Amino acid sequence: MPSLTHVPIGLIGFGAFGRLVAEHLAPHGRLRIHDPFVPDADFAAAGVVPYTLAEAAACPVVILATPVSGLAEVVRAVAPHLREGALVLDVGSVKVRPAAIMRAGLPPGVDIVATHPLFGPQSARGGLPGLKIAVCPVRGDRARRVGAFLRRALGLSVILTTPEAHDREAAAVQGLTHLIAKVLVAMEPLPTRMTTRSFDLVMQAVGMVRHDAPEVYHAIERENPYAAEVRRRFFDLAAQMDGELGEGEGIETRASLDA
Amino acid sequence: MPSLTHVPIGLIGFGAFGRLVAEHLAPHGRLRIHDPFVPDADFAAAGVVPYTLAEAAACPVVILATPVSGLAEVVRAVAPHLREGALVLDVGSVKVRPAAIMRAGLPPGVDIVATHPLFGPQSARGGLPGLKIAVCPVRGDRARRVGAFLRRALGLSVILTTPEAHDREAAAVQGLTHLIAKVLVAMEPLPTRMTTRSFDLVMQAVGMVRHDAPEVYHAIERENPYAAEVRRRFFDLAAQMDGELGEGEGIETRASLDA
Repeated sequence: MPSLTHVPIGLIGFGAFGRLVAEHLAPHGRLRIHDPFVPDADFAAAGVVPYTLAEAAACPVVILATPVSGLAEVVRAVAPHLREGALVLDVGSVKVRPAAIMRAGLPPGVDIVATHPLFGPQSARGGLPGLKIAVCPVRGDRARRVGAFLRRALGLSVILTTPEAHDREAAAVQGLTHLIAKVLVAMEPLPTRMTTRSFDLVMQAVGMVRHDAPEVYHAIERENPYAAEVRRRFFDLAAQMDGELGEGEGIETRASLDA
Repeated sequence: MPSLTHVPIGLIGFGAFGRLVAEHLAPHGRLRIHDPFVPDADFAAAGVVPYTLAEAAACPVVILATPVSGLAEVVRAVAPHLREGALVLDVGSVKVRPAAIMRAGLPPGVDIVATHPLFGPQSARGGLPGLKIAVCPVRGDRARRVGAFLRRALGLSVILTTPEAHDREAAAVQGLTHLIAKVLVAMEPLPTRMTTRSFDLVMQAVGMVRHDAPEVYHAIERENPYAAEVRRRFFDLAAQMDGELGEGEGIETRASLDA
């Protein structure tokens, strides 16, 4: 069984996150990158020679770095080219749905580990060490070994979990952050001068997710089975706060001041 | 006309923010602190000898560190004891209403400067230098001198503004931060393990305001004339995002997965 280090690694997807994967895995394996939507000129600009789907998918380790919404299609395309005993990983922001798609679509002789790096190009600017990644065993017994590699070689903080437990937590963590960020961006221009430290922190959080691809937002809010429920609680509580503020004393004192 | 340094300073109010004021002004003036709601034992524990209202209010500089909701009452109590030529300042989170209350209730021979330190006991833990304070001239010409003192003696970043301009910006800055924080606190327990950097920043912001006195929240949301409008925009946009997420593709794909 191949180890994750210094083996050929197939990377399907060379978008913003695929590039981040490539940058950090290049010292650890011989990458074969494939992305039919990236022009050759972009590959050339990144100093990378593109491979065909068949070449990339034939590696002992294959990473699917595509939007969750396109994963089913990629799995169908990749499946016929995979070798017996290969290890396939994804990097999507939700895990229940991708795990189900991979389990259903990848041949039985292939091991599957679903991962979610809890960071993006913005938050990884300062380097990977200390950043978190969720790792879920889906098929086979290689999740712990993947976790050990991510910990030792990349310095990541590894959270071994299940797709369900992941999506429950991510529904709150990412669902709320992205929703709040989306609303605040829509309210811009917001003040930049008379700000508090806490507002600055919120806007810093907004800055980290505002340039995420729309697919990331949609995966987080739509393809996480628990996200709608979290949004519902947020809106219900917000409406309740708003109702409380609309009543009583506040309006009275404002009226008496105007008088 | 007395300078702000090394004169007796009357401080009316010895709550969380009054204590912060006392701590930082002690090296710059002889403080006379009055707060009828703080027991003598608490003054003793803080190593402070309390003064009567008349003694504190007779200082050349008097700082009103009371909740905005109680300001009118404090102004009424303080007014008869103020000296001709005294300078009165407040430190409330909103400025239109307090400026109007002080202008209406303080004797004509008294100068008034309304201030809003854009920080609290949590955010001031690392020291004052670099923190922001809004300073609004209300009556007399001493606002610039107050600003110069706050800049030089305390290292604060001073924003000279008007009560109206202040409240417009604060309605977004504080109105949104406190509302979001209030909702997130109500949603607890929230995940602490599988978190992203942006979620951590949001929760750090929540941590800075969650222990604020309820009066602070009410002042920010109820006594700022522009806060309701900001809340309205936030809720309308959030509902719009929610509506968009509820439609189309998302539900379809989830249904097809379940099937």
